[in-house]
Amino acid sequence: MTLLESITGPEDLRRLDATLLPRLAGEIREFLVDAVSKTGGHLGPNLGVVELTIALHRVFDSPRDRILFDTGHQAYVHKLLTGRQDFSALKRRGGVSGYPSQSESEHDVIENSHASTVLSYADGIAKAFQLRGESERAVVAVVGDGALTGGMCWEALNNIAGAQDRPVIIVVNDNGRSYSPTIGGLASHLADLRVTQGYERALDLIKRTVPKAPVVGAVAYEALHGMKKGIKDVLQPQAMFEDLGMKYVGPIDGHDTEAMEHALRKARSYGRPVIVHALTRKGQGYEPALANDEDHMHGAGAFDPATGKSPAKPGAAPGWTKVFGEEMVEIGAERPDVVAITAAMLHPTGLAPFAEAYPDRIYDVGIAEQHAATSAAGLAFGGMHPVFAVYATFLNRAFDQVLMDVALHRLPVTFALDRSGVTGDDGASHNGMWDLSILSLVPGMRIAVPRDGARLRELLRECVAIEDGPSAIRYPKGSVATDVEAVDQVGGMDVLARHDGANGTRVLLVVAGSLAGTVLEAAELIAAQGIGVTVVDPRWVKPLDPALVGLAAEHTLVAVVEDNGRTGAVGDAVARELRDHAVDVPVRTYGIEQEFLDHASRAQILADLGLTPQDLAREITAATAHVAGHGNASAAERGHAAGAEREHGSTTEREHASAEAATD
Amino acid sequence: MTLLESITGPEDLRRLDATLLPRLAGEIREFLVDAVSKTGGHLGPNLGVVELTIALHRVFDSPRDRILFDTGHQAYVHKLLTGRQDFSALKRRGGVSGYPSQSESEHDVIENSHASTVLSYADGIAKAFQLRGESERAVVAVVGDGALTGGMCWEALNNIAGAQDRPVIIVVNDNGRSYSPTIGGLASHLADLRVTQGYERALDLIKRTVPKAPVVGAVAYEALHGMKKGIKDVLQPQAMFEDLGMKYVGPIDGHDTEAMEHALRKARSYGRPVIVHALTRKGQGYEPALANDEDHMHGAGAFDPATGKSPAKPGAAPGWTKVFGEEMVEIGAERPDVVAITAAMLHPTGLAPFAEAYPDRIYDVGIAEQHAATSAAGLAFGGMHPVFAVYATFLNRAFDQVLMDVALHRLPVTFALDRSGVTGDDGASHNGMWDLSILSLVPGMRIAVPRDGARLRELLRECVAIEDGPSAIRYPKGSVATDVEAVDQVGGMDVLARHDGANGTRVLLVVAGSLAGTVLEAAELIAAQGIGVTVVDPRWVKPLDPALVGLAAEHTLVAVVEDNGRTGAVGDAVARELRDHAVDVPVRTYGIEQEFLDHASRAQILADLGLTPQDLAREITAATAHVAGHGNASAAERGHAAGAEREHGSTTEREHASAEAATD
Repeated sequence: MTLLESITGPEDLRRLDATLLPRLAGEIREFLVDAVSKTGGHLGPNLGVVELTIALHRVFDSPRDRILFDTGHQAYVHKLLTGRQDFSALKRRGGVSGYPSQSESEHDVIENSHASTVLSYADGIAKAFQLRGESERAVVAVVGDGALTGGMCWEALNNIAGAQDRPVIIVVNDNGRSYSPTIGGLASHLADLRVTQGYERALDLIKRTVPKAPVVGAVAYEALHGMKKGIKDVLQPQAMFEDLGMKYVGPIDGHDTEAMEHALRKARSYGRPVIVHALTRKGQGYEPALANDEDHMHGAGAFDPATGKSPAKPGAAPGWTKVFGEEMVEIGAERPDVVAITAAMLHPTGLAPFAEAYPDRIYDVGIAEQHAATSAAGLAFGGMHPVFAVYATFLNRAFDQVLMDVALHRLPVTFALDRSGVTGDDGASHNGMWDLSILSLVPGMRIAVPRDGARLRELLRECVAIEDGPSAIRYPKGSVATDVEAVDQVGGMDVLARHDGANGTRVLLVVAGSLAGTVLEAAELIAAQGIGVTVVDPRWVKPLDPALVGLAAEHTLVAVVEDNGRTGAVGDAVARELRDHAVDVPVRTYGIEQEFLDHASRAQILADLGLTPQDLAREITAATAHVAGHGNASAAERGHAAGAEREHGSTTEREHASAEAATD
Repeated sequence: MTLLESITGPEDLRRLDATLLPRLAGEIREFLVDAVSKTGGHLGPNLGVVELTIALHRVFDSPRDRILFDTGHQAYVHKLLTGRQDFSALKRRGGVSGYPSQSESEHDVIENSHASTVLSYADGIAKAFQLRGESERAVVAVVGDGALTGGMCWEALNNIAGAQDRPVIIVVNDNGRSYSPTIGGLASHLADLRVTQGYERALDLIKRTVPKAPVVGAVAYEALHGMKKGIKDVLQPQAMFEDLGMKYVGPIDGHDTEAMEHALRKARSYGRPVIVHALTRKGQGYEPALANDEDHMHGAGAFDPATGKSPAKPGAAPGWTKVFGEEMVEIGAERPDVVAITAAMLHPTGLAPFAEAYPDRIYDVGIAEQHAATSAAGLAFGGMHPVFAVYATFLNRAFDQVLMDVALHRLPVTFALDRSGVTGDDGASHNGMWDLSILSLVPGMRIAVPRDGARLRELLRECVAIEDGPSAIRYPKGSVATDVEAVDQVGGMDVLARHDGANGTRVLLVVAGSLAGTVLEAAELIAAQGIGVTVVDPRWVKPLDPALVGLAAEHTLVAVVEDNGRTGAVGDAVARELRDHAVDVPVRTYGIEQEFLDHASRAQILADLGLTPQDLAREITAATAHVAGHGNASAAERGHAAGAEREHGSTTEREHASAEAATD
C-alpha cells in the first residue's frame, strides 16, 4: 500500500508525520502523470499545487473549514486527499469530474470553472459564518495570479478588506504564468519579505522561473509587488493589498510544505483578512511539463508518460480554431484596421499566428472579458475593426458590455466565439450553450453560424466587412466539419438538400452550424418515408433572412435544429418571425435542453438530447404526422394529443433540480 | 446677453479671460437650478462638476481630443459648453437627452449610463489613436470615486498602466459620496500632496465635506488614499495607483478652475497614463442641494428653486419600491436568515428601512453587481437567504454570476428587480427590458412578476420561501397598480376576467405584471365584438404553470403581453411550451421591440409600441379574424396574408440602425 492509498480523507493526512510528506508529494505526482496520460486532463496546474494542497488540508479542517478553489481545474490533488483516488474515468460519464463537484464530496464547493469568482464566494461564506456565530470556521480561497486580473477580484477585495473583523484567508497561487519579462524590480522588492522562513528557496525559485514567463497579466503582477516604486521602497515594501488594508504574508515557496503550513497557520492566527502569497511552478516535478514553454501541459490530451508527447493523429481535419487563426492572418494582411483581442487565451483561441504576424495589433487584456469588450468599443470608435476571440461560455461575462458599450453605439466589433455548443467533458460551465441566446437580445447584432470550414472563412470576412454595427461568428470545439456545398439559394440562404415528397406533407429543416451534417442525414431518413424535405442553412441567424418566411409558408412543418440552449435562440427566433408575419405553420425546435449538463463526451450528450439523425428523423416524422392528422381537429383534440410526442423542456424547474441532485 | 449665452462652443470658452470664469460658473449654476427645477433631472452631480468641466474644455480641444464621461448623468455642463443650451425639454421626447448622445453632438461619446465603463473605452480609443499615428490627440476619462469600486475599472487600470507609451488622462471626480466615516487617516495622508497649488483650499474642502459622507464604497476610498498605512507613510504617500504604475496628480480642489486647469495641463504634459484626483462637492453652490444629506438632490423631480422642495402629490399611491421595502422589513422580523444586498443603491432600491431595522443583515458592496451576486451565492451556501435588490438593467452586469455562481449551485438567492420594463426618460440604457430574457436562460431560476402591490408582497414571500434554488421578482418604476383580484384560479394561475363570446372564437390573453390593467381594458374592447376572452395572470412566468397548456388548447388564439423585450421572454416561452406539447394553437406576442429606445416618457413609449388597450384590442381582434379566416387555408395563402397585420420586430437590423441614427 502506498502512502497515498492510506489517505482516505484529510484526517489521515493530518496524522501523517511531516517527514513523510515529500514522499507523499512524489506519489501524488506519479499518480497524476500516470492518470492524466491515459485520460487527458489538467496536468500542469495540478502538479504545481501538490504541496500547497497538502498544507491546506493539514492546517484547515475541511469541510468544517471551507477550502475554495477558483477556476477549479487545479483541484485534482484536493480530490486525491479527500477520498477520490479512482481517476480511471476522469472527466468521463460516471467518472470523477475535472472540477470540484458537490455531488462527489462534501469537501467541494465551487463547481463553476469561470475565473475570478472565489473571493466573492469566500466573502459571502464568511458573512454567513459571522451572522450564524460560527466565526471560528475558517474560509480559505485559493486563486491564481492570473485570475486576479479579473474585475470580480477587485470588487471582492474591496469588500473583504472593508471588514477587518471577518477573516478570509486568500492564498494567491502565483505560478509564474503572469510574469512580465521586464521583471527587474522584483528581486529588490523581495528584499524585505515578511516571512523569512523559506526565503532563500523562494528567491531561488523565482530566479529559476522568471525567465520563462510570458507577458500576460504583467501589470497585475507589478501591482502585486508594487515594483514600480523607487529604490526607497526596497526598505518599505508595500504590496497593493496593504493599500487595501489586507495583511500580507509572503512570498512563500509553494513547494515547501513546511513553509506553507507555517504561513497558513500564521495567516489563520491573525483573525483578519490576509493574503498568503505562494510561489509555485506549473508542471513541477515532471520534466516534459516544465519543458513545455507554451503552457506547461496546462490541459493535456492522452500522452506517453515517458515523453509527454501525444500520439500524432494522421489525416485528422484541422480544428475550427486553426482555420479561424489562419483566416485572421490573411485578413490582417489585407486590412490594417483589423486588430485582435484575447482575454489571456492567445494560443487557445488561435490568435498566436496573428500576434506573430502583427505584433502591434494584438491585445491580451488578461482574464478581463468586460474590458475586452469595452476596449474593443473604444478601438472601433477610434476607427479600427477589433475581433475579440473568446470561448463562447466566457462571453457571458461581458453581456452588458456587448449590449451597452458596443451595440448601443453601433460599433463594428466582431466577436469570434470558439467552443460554442456542447463541449462535454469539462462539465456544465464550459458548454457554449448561452451565446446565441444572449446575442439574440442585442439590437443590431448580426450573428453568423458557419456549418463548415469554408463557411467559417467566408462568414468571418463578411463579419469584418460590416461597418455599422457589431457581429458575431460562432463555431464549436474540435475538427471542422466536411464542407457541404449548397444545391440552391433562397435569398441569402443556402439550400443544402431538397427531397420531393409523395404524400403532400413538406418539412422545412432549418439548421445553422456544425449540426448540418446530422440534419442532412435526418432529412434522408425522413424523405425515405415519402415526406418532402427542404434543408436550409440561413448562414446568418440574426437578422433572419427575409426570404425565410415565404419559404416556411410553402411547407406544412418547420423544424429548427441548433447546438445551443433552446431558450431564446434560433428556434424561438424562427417561430417568432413566422408569428409576426401571421404565418401559422407549426414549428418544432430542437437543441440543448435549458439545463446544466453533467460532464460526458459531446457525442454522449448529443445522443441524450436526441440530436442524432435517427432521433431527429423519428421526432420530425411523428410531428409531421401529428400536424397532418390534426390540422382540422379542434383545439381540445390538439391539447389532448400533447403527451404523444417526446417533450422538450417541459419538466418543471423543481423536477429538474431534483434530477440533477440525484446524479452521480 | 449672459456670458453663458456667448459660449457657442469650446473655442469661445477658451477665448474667455480667466478672470471671467467664476462669473460663468455662477451663471451655469443658475441655469442648472432653474432648468432642472422645471423638468427634473440630475442636479447635484452637475452642480459639482461646473469648474471641472470648464477646465476640461479649456485645456483639451474636443472633439479632436476626446473627453469621456462615465455614467453620463454629470454631462449637463458639458452640454451647455458645447452648444446645447435649450434645456426646456430635458429628458423629454425631442428635447436634450439626460446623457451624452452622439446624435446631439460630435463632442459626445459614451451614451451608456452603466457605471465604470469609461476607462475601458478610453483604453480602446488611446490604442486606436496610437495605431493610427494620432497619439497627439488626448484621451480624457472622467470617472467618479464611487464608480471605481466596479471591477471593470480594475481591469482597465491594469491595461492602461501596462502601456506607459499610451497616455490616458483619468480624472477622478471624488465628490465625497464614497467617504468612510472612519476617516481619521485622511488628513495625515494629505500632508504630502503632490500638487501644492490649491492645497489649502482642498484641505478646507475636505474638512467641510467629510463629516457628511455616507459609508458606501469606503474601502475604495481607502485604497485610493492608501490611508490604512502606518505613520511612516505620511512622509511617503503612496496611492494605489502608483503601485499600478500610474502617475498621480492631486488632490485638487475641483471647484478652483485655475488649479484644475494647471493640474490638467501638467497631466497632459507627462505623455503617459496619469490620474488627476479632483475633489468636488455634489450640489456645490446651491444650498438646498448641499443640505440634502441623503443624496444632495442627485436625481430630482421638478422643484421650487427657492427651497429645493418638490410639491407634494396628495393621494398618490405608494411606489413599488416602497411596498417592497416595507415587506422586506416584515420578512426580516420573521426570518433571521434573510439578509439584503445592494450595489451602492440603499435608498433607491428601498432597502434603507431594512438596513435601519437590521443593521447586521444589510450589505452595500459598492457599484459591484458581480460581487453582489456571487457573495450572495456564498451567503446562501452558508445558510442565509440573501435578497439582492437592484435595478433590472444593472442585473445584466451579473448575468454570468447569476447563472454559474448562483444557479449552477442551486442556491436560494432572491433577485428583486426594480425599474423593470420601460422607464423611459433616462434613455436606452435605463430601460429594464432585458431581465426576463436573460433570467429565462437560467436553469432552475423561478421568476415572479406581480401585477399589483398585493401580489408583490405575496410573491416576495413565496420567493424567500424557496429553499432549493434562485428566484427573481420584477416590478416597474412608479406607483403601484390598483389591486386586481382574481375571479378564478386555473392551476396556480389567476384568471382575471372571462368574457363569453358569441362567434366561436376564443382568445386567451396572458399577462404578468403591471400591464394587467391595460390588458383587462383591451379584453373588454375585444369582448365587445363578440369574441370570447379569458385573461390569465400566471404570476410565475418561469416555470410556466403546467395548466397553461391545457388552458391554451381551449382557445383559438393565445396572445401574450409583457413589459420586456420580445426576444426570449414570456411570449417566446409560452409559444415554446405549446410547441413542445404539440399544441399548435396560433400565438401572438406583444411587448417591447428588441431595439434601443430613445428617451421619452413611459406613456409615449408604450403608445409607440402599441401597448395601449386600443392598439392591443385592434391587433388581437385582427389576429383572431385572420386565424379564423385562414384556419383551413393552404400554407401559401397564410404566407400571402403576412403583410396584413401590424408587424412586430420584423424590420431588419440594418433598417433599425438607420432609423435610430436619424432620430433627433
